Amino acid sequence: MKRPEPRTEPVPEATSHRLSLLLRSLRSLEAAGVRTASSYEIAARFSLNSAQIRKDLAQFGEFGVRGVGYRVADLKAHLKDLMGLGVTHAIGIAGAGKLGQALADSPNFNAEGFRVAALFDVDGRKVGGCSRTGVPIRDVQALDGLVKKLGIDIGILAIPEAGAVPLAQRMAGAGVRAILNFAPVTVPALPGVLVKNLDLTFFLENLSFQLAIAKA
Amino acid sequence: MKRPEPRTEPVPEATSHRLSLLLRSLRSLEAAGVRTASSYEIAARFSLNSAQIRKDLAQFGEFGVRGVGYRVADLKAHLKDLMGLGVTHAIGIAGAGKLGQALADSPNFNAEGFRVAALFDVDGRKVGGCSRTGVPIRDVQALDGLVKKLGIDIGILAIPEAGAVPLAQRMAGAGVRAILNFAPVTVPALPGVLVKNLDLTFFLENLSFQLAIAKA
Repeated sequence: MKRPEPRTEPVPEATSHRLSLLLRSLRSLEAAGVRTASSYEIAARFSLNSAQIRKDLAQFGEFGVRGVGYRVADLKAHLKDLMGLGVTHAIGIAGAGKLGQALADSPNFNAEGFRVAALFDVDGRKVGGCSRTGVPIRDVQALDGLVKKLGIDIGILAIPEAGAVPLAQRMAGAGVRAILNFAPVTVPALPGVLVKNLDLTFFLENLSFQLAIAKA
Repeated sequence: MKRPEPRTEPVPEATSHRLSLLLRSLRSLEAAGVRTASSYEIAARFSLNSAQIRKDLAQFGEFGVRGVGYRVADLKAHLKDLMGLGVTHAIGIAGAGKLGQALADSPNFNAEGFRVAALFDVDGRKVGGCSRTGVPIRDVQALDGLVKKLGIDIGILAIPEAGAVPLAQRMAGAGVRAILNFAPVTVPALPGVLVKNLDLTFFLENLSFQLAIAKA
């Protein structure tokens, strides 16, 4: 495999999501015992676009083998490596409410590349307990020390709006490198920390918007 | 206000999300008693881009008033109307697990434009009960009748992967017009129904990807 020069500009979210879909497709092919596949075969099987697959991959190297297509296991390993999923990221979730616990117990937040290390809450009735799958619920006061001790590099905010910005700042100060914010407030960029604001209401509003346009 | 010709092509999700942010900003301004504001003032106060605000709005009409800027209440009302939020969408959530109940009880899924009308589940121990805020949990077998009776036009899938596609098809058959799918599987396009697949893992993988590139 040849690789282009390392790139430092951000990868567009749409590209990243397509590569996530491709990775999911490769896992599925591997589980089905398929060892090699062309971009056409992958595209047909998973309703993807073959030209887009080739274009997305071409930005990061030459992964295909002439006359063979892609070796499924190899391409999966390369993609995982490229996307930083060869190591396991430890996740800390602020907010042990229903959303926080749903994420903590989600198989997909504890799959290749990720492990939820702790939930944090202010509620003394929850602290000391754990989620259904055994993720410990810790006092938010212990956040700074536990981020370091558990090697937490990704923080998730599943708390109400009011606490989100201060808690993001606190996570950043403790050494978290990326934050996924579900609170309906914009957490501004923090030095040296990636922040993704993910207000789920916006997706509902988008559906409403499209329905309104379709009706017009 | 002048309006351009009605448009039928889909609005890009990024544009829609920016208009959602703008709407949130206008609600905040209104709550603070601000009656008029220029795009510069709105941008400065909410960390938005003033040229982008004007460009996004210009696609849908002329909303500003020369020498005044925007009238906050008017622009908010126009945006709500444009985005189909002047009517209340009834939402049905399949899956009364933690994620489903978190969404059902979320103030933002029961705010202007939306109301969660019912949760659906297969678990006989949950059916007949309700969520913390009182959203009834109904048997999924009753879905078809209740979609019609309650006027549910948006369905949310908060269930495991295996059931997602059949349930989406069932919702579509019952008359749901848009589906937001949180299960980690792609629900394909269904005739006459908007489908948004929202695998939250992809946002985590994107953060991992960006961290890997920053390190390279």
